[in-house]
Amino acid sequence: MGTSEFDVIDLYFKPGRSREDVIVGIGDDCAVLDVPTGKRLLTSTDTLIAGLHFPEHTSPEDIAAKTVAVNFSDLAAMGAEPTWVTLALTLPDVDHRWLKAFSSSFHRAIDEYNVQLIGGDTTKGNLSLTLQVMGFIDVGKCMLRANAKPGDLIFVSGYLGDAALGLAMQQKKIALPDEAATYCLDRLNRPTARVELGQAISDYSKCAIDISDGLFVDLTHIMDASQCGANIELNSIPLSAPVRKYLADITNQLELRELMTGDDYELCFTADESHSQTIYAIAEKYHIPITCIGIINSSKELTCTEGNGHAIDILHTGFDHFS
Amino acid sequence: MGTSEFDVIDLYFKPGRSREDVIVGIGDDCAVLDVPTGKRLLTSTDTLIAGLHFPEHTSPEDIAAKTVAVNFSDLAAMGAEPTWVTLALTLPDVDHRWLKAFSSSFHRAIDEYNVQLIGGDTTKGNLSLTLQVMGFIDVGKCMLRANAKPGDLIFVSGYLGDAALGLAMQQKKIALPDEAATYCLDRLNRPTARVELGQAISDYSKCAIDISDGLFVDLTHIMDASQCGANIELNSIPLSAPVRKYLADITNQLELRELMTGDDYELCFTADESHSQTIYAIAEKYHIPITCIGIINSSKELTCTEGNGHAIDILHTGFDHFS
Repeated sequence: MGTSEFDVIDLYFKPGRSREDVIVGIGDDCAVLDVPTGKRLLTSTDTLIAGLHFPEHTSPEDIAAKTVAVNFSDLAAMGAEPTWVTLALTLPDVDHRWLKAFSSSFHRAIDEYNVQLIGGDTTKGNLSLTLQVMGFIDVGKCMLRANAKPGDLIFVSGYLGDAALGLAMQQKKIALPDEAATYCLDRLNRPTARVELGQAISDYSKCAIDISDGLFVDLTHIMDASQCGANIELNSIPLSAPVRKYLADITNQLELRELMTGDDYELCFTADESHSQTIYAIAEKYHIPITCIGIINSSKELTCTEGNGHAIDILHTGFDHFS
Repeated sequence: MGTSEFDVIDLYFKPGRSREDVIVGIGDDCAVLDVPTGKRLLTSTDTLIAGLHFPEHTSPEDIAAKTVAVNFSDLAAMGAEPTWVTLALTLPDVDHRWLKAFSSSFHRAIDEYNVQLIGGDTTKGNLSLTLQVMGFIDVGKCMLRANAKPGDLIFVSGYLGDAALGLAMQQKKIALPDEAATYCLDRLNRPTARVELGQAISDYSKCAIDISDGLFVDLTHIMDASQCGANIELNSIPLSAPVRKYLADITNQLELRELMTGDDYELCFTADESHSQTIYAIAEKYHIPITCIGIINSSKELTCTEGNGHAIDILHTGFDHFS
């Protein structure tokens, strides 16, 4: 192919932002980084594979934007400030048009968070991407899955189910009106990592998770880690107009629980009731809806009620990479 | 398959060492880590793909050992102390025998370096592994590719060419006597990251690289970064008995330069002549040969001489992932 790994990195991935805490960036055996005194380092890694996490024909711009959002969402869920990222990119060949589009979108996405690409690897194979994000948080300030307490209210940011509806349409399982289709596909392909929101709520919440596997599955992660239960009021789950409209039509086949299957990348967090007003004020400041959907309790069960208090059996259906 | 991502992580990757600087390990959205004051964080990431970086039929034990060594070798080349690692593992299916063997070997390998696995991802696809290693170094103490100075001596650790000879045999391009074959395959599949050595020499060397792409290619990385040239005395290149014996037989087809094609994972470093005796003393302490193979000069060229001072034209043949 005539283009080596070194050229690919030089051409497409070296340019970009220079942060002061990057002592040595791309180009040596390791990056050399400065973590300030009083800060903890946070890190998370995720792999996205063509044909599994996104359809093979997804545009390079969407792939870059989604990969960045999915990874930064993990930092958001801890309340961290993103700083650096590495990218391990496996490509079937050196397609300069693809690389140009991908790298532009990638740099644009990380630039929005003031993040620097500090290393990576390019290899030949089926298209896949492994990102590792890093970030800072003040010592003692992390939102952890294990910190939910009975009596805590459960909040979620944004609207849930958009991406699942978009995916069902993309998989030709359902049809949607044009405008709803555009909206849901955009939410599927270009989710927003709630990074600023995560940092803002971390003064008032001690427990958060990002909704990647689906609301109910991700809630069970909090329950398992915190050794507690939860009750969700199904009518409270925040839904966008397209999802509401879809569910309101009884001739449509998918139900609410079938749309709670992940890829939302919204935050689910708990907080003491005394912080509710502050949390709604943060929502207003950042123009992101925040909704209280339930309460943590001391059972080990996830129960759901629907308006009249009637308990609903919710299948724990989520996205599982191996099933 | 009935085994989810969560089970795979719980079963095979959660157990292991607990370092005090790991505040939160596997199990939350991010790991939370403590980088001590006065230390820099170093990080590097590498992807290994079945069929490209190792043959499909390679044992899970060898895959784990090699992946760890390849990645830790980058830390060794900076003089860093390894601390943490993440593993993004892509598997065609959940094969418990494979996973048990792989994870045992993986944990054994990182345990030797006192390193903790702090996160990762498991996904479904063609077998590939992306590791990201992290480590510490005292502020101001890094060995960088850009720090070579004219007059510096060039040293290499260990013996070069063993892995290349093993690979040629594995690819059935050549045949080797049994004992030599075992030795060379072991060096190919189970390279040693020179982590202790890297830390020890970092008091006396300011410039190092690990030999992954091949001696001559990796030397050009130092030359490019340091804006200098180098002269190598070919007869000085340290060779193991099996490689020596192979090259001495004129009926054998591969020449020295064809064995300088990478996968050695030895260190190539430069140092002022005044440190030579100390460096040889370190070699003796760690029982790892260290050999002076040439000198940095102010040209921009890589020249090679062979005993009588006659210059040899060396093709810059190295391992290139895309050509």
